Amino acid sequence: MLLNPNLATTFSPPVMEARRWLEGKSFSPDQPLINVSQAAPVDPPPEAMREAMADAVLRLPETHLYGPVLGLPALRDELAFNINRHYGADVTSKNVAITSGCNQAFAASIATLAAPGDEVILPTPWYFNHKMWLDMGGITAVPLATGDDLLPDPSKAAALITPRTRAIALVTPNNPTGVEYPAELIAAFRDLARKHGIALIIDETYRDFHSQDGAPHDLFSDPDWDDTVIQLYSFSKSYRLTGHRVGSVLTSPARLAEIEKFLDTVTICPAQLGQHAALWGLRNLDEWLAGERLEILGRAQAMRDGFAPLTERGWKLMGCGAYFAYLQHPFDMPSDQLAQALVDHASLLALPGTMFTPEGDKSGAQQMRVAFANIDTAGIQTALNRLAAFQP
Amino acid sequence: MLLNPNLATTFSPPVMEARRWLEGKSFSPDQPLINVSQAAPVDPPPEAMREAMADAVLRLPETHLYGPVLGLPALRDELAFNINRHYGADVTSKNVAITSGCNQAFAASIATLAAPGDEVILPTPWYFNHKMWLDMGGITAVPLATGDDLLPDPSKAAALITPRTRAIALVTPNNPTGVEYPAELIAAFRDLARKHGIALIIDETYRDFHSQDGAPHDLFSDPDWDDTVIQLYSFSKSYRLTGHRVGSVLTSPARLAEIEKFLDTVTICPAQLGQHAALWGLRNLDEWLAGERLEILGRAQAMRDGFAPLTERGWKLMGCGAYFAYLQHPFDMPSDQLAQALVDHASLLALPGTMFTPEGDKSGAQQMRVAFANIDTAGIQTALNRLAAFQP
Repeated sequence: MLLNPNLATTFSPPVMEARRWLEGKSFSPDQPLINVSQAAPVDPPPEAMREAMADAVLRLPETHLYGPVLGLPALRDELAFNINRHYGADVTSKNVAITSGCNQAFAASIATLAAPGDEVILPTPWYFNHKMWLDMGGITAVPLATGDDLLPDPSKAAALITPRTRAIALVTPNNPTGVEYPAELIAAFRDLARKHGIALIIDETYRDFHSQDGAPHDLFSDPDWDDTVIQLYSFSKSYRLTGHRVGSVLTSPARLAEIEKFLDTVTICPAQLGQHAALWGLRNLDEWLAGERLEILGRAQAMRDGFAPLTERGWKLMGCGAYFAYLQHPFDMPSDQLAQALVDHASLLALPGTMFTPEGDKSGAQQMRVAFANIDTAGIQTALNRLAAFQP
Repeated sequence: MLLNPNLATTFSPPVMEARRWLEGKSFSPDQPLINVSQAAPVDPPPEAMREAMADAVLRLPETHLYGPVLGLPALRDELAFNINRHYGADVTSKNVAITSGCNQAFAASIATLAAPGDEVILPTPWYFNHKMWLDMGGITAVPLATGDDLLPDPSKAAALITPRTRAIALVTPNNPTGVEYPAELIAAFRDLARKHGIALIIDETYRDFHSQDGAPHDLFSDPDWDDTVIQLYSFSKSYRLTGHRVGSVLTSPARLAEIEKFLDTVTICPAQLGQHAALWGLRNLDEWLAGERLEILGRAQAMRDGFAPLTERGWKLMGCGAYFAYLQHPFDMPSDQLAQALVDHASLLALPGTMFTPEGDKSGAQQMRVAFANIDTAGIQTALNRLAAFQP
């Protein structure tokens, strides 16, 4: 079969691969499946938002028609306002584009920055879709290994920069590790990127579940932020809109003009209903979202509080925050095998570290990601009990 | 600014550029704007479909959650059934993926076929987003000039094939020309592609408005069709769902596994509500769609019937079908200037041929695309009157 080698060499979607591990399996009512594989709210948005959405479907004809490539002007305005309030910033809607989810925001940003043969630095463990997109474009993902604290080191990153480097991409709060990068660390990466004339991409999909009140970094208080920083965000997790595909990208108006070319050609415009929902959410759900944040911070605490029995069995909680816990397991078994054994014997689906680490990197074989925010505190306790009881 | 040269060299979205020609302009109530620039239904879907969608929003939680990358299984099944009925084919849902619109189906297909430096043959005038996507990927769009009948010639295409050619992409009924390619011509292109081991991409976005009853080609009656043919389709025009982004791609299961990588990384999954709507449409709107087709065929007829006064003034109706008429204008003025003059003096927005032809190709300067299906027969008459009255 005629195949683009850049596409052929990247891996298949890990979440879909993990779903296939469930095929043909059944789970007893005593021990139903716990799915902590994909970071995905399991409930729909709050009822008032669903009612506003249904109303748009019935009574707002433009919900069904093409909209501007860069998103609804009212949503771009409202997100700029929200960013300014949250970060003490001064961005305008000319800095904002709405995308069909945050993966697309990353894909579009990279498309404007890097050509085949270029390089992008990603801390490891990395978010697999970032690695996949770079592979498909013939762009080298340069792994930046993190230490036991799972934080990337700017001086190590500096040593990886070459004339072909186009960007460093950070995810904070991090996927897959749950770790929150300190503001000073983020600023140091911005300085490094600026010094080398490359971009700093910062993916803040999990921003609304950060443990710190207020701005998690001060990138936007720099008046020249948009010469270096590209910020990505998603409405999916915050308002439970994963099925509607709404994310965003913040950058310079000049780069947005390039991003517009990519978005037009790949999807023409983001789906309108999701945009109306996001706009409604920004205008009406501050209080609700604050409650959601507390709930999810409570789940992270339940994860930490309940971990002691696992520690006794040789597990280690390497990172825990926002949506994810990142675990080191004690078994002499690579994590991709362990993950499948956990499906069969513990009715628990979580993704192995091998999905987040470069081929040949041995650390991933000893690690697992648990998207604990999908389940409530009782479910977290059950999941921890099952892990503690598991023996390969 | 750090920029990927492949992206920087392609042009800005033509539809967005044309919208900017309207900025700051006002149109008198005597002569309101007629917008025939973008192929876009101006009405929402029928009420019963909107009610089904609102019901899903309110009562079907999975409408708001992630779905499979390749689309809802029920929709893939139903589209396979629909294709089999329409084309007398025997495809299965394993041949079908749902995409976030038909542009994405093209982007994903090309991503699986061609790497930077490869070539794809496009008949001209071409659909600009196809050209843009190839540019962005560093893939050469090789123009295949058509003659006065606007049909591509397989023997001329054969002469353009090189060791780097990966595909020929046809659009039928054609965007921008409205011309329907005869079944034998399509089969000849399939034979040519197969002989050279390259793909034949056939974009049938306007399939449901074809003037011919039944199958417009017999590609799918070939049991080995999927070794060569990749078919693209869109629910956007048929069910007036442009704002929801739902299209599809038909190919081999092996290629779909590669397409899955691209779709996962670019959008994770198509928006769920649009998929539910498309499924509802396939199950409930056959009769309604047949009526829509007759209405749009009637508009094409109105375009042809009303054209005589323009012919007298030196205009030529080069192509007319499905959504589009493709006109040759009589003025000593390039079409991109003419298009802007028509906004100012005739309150009519149509796209110039320069947007559909390679740089330096002089034919486009003499041509205009009119998306007549956006307006009713009375509107078509008004548009024709304004064109006939226009003098630069």
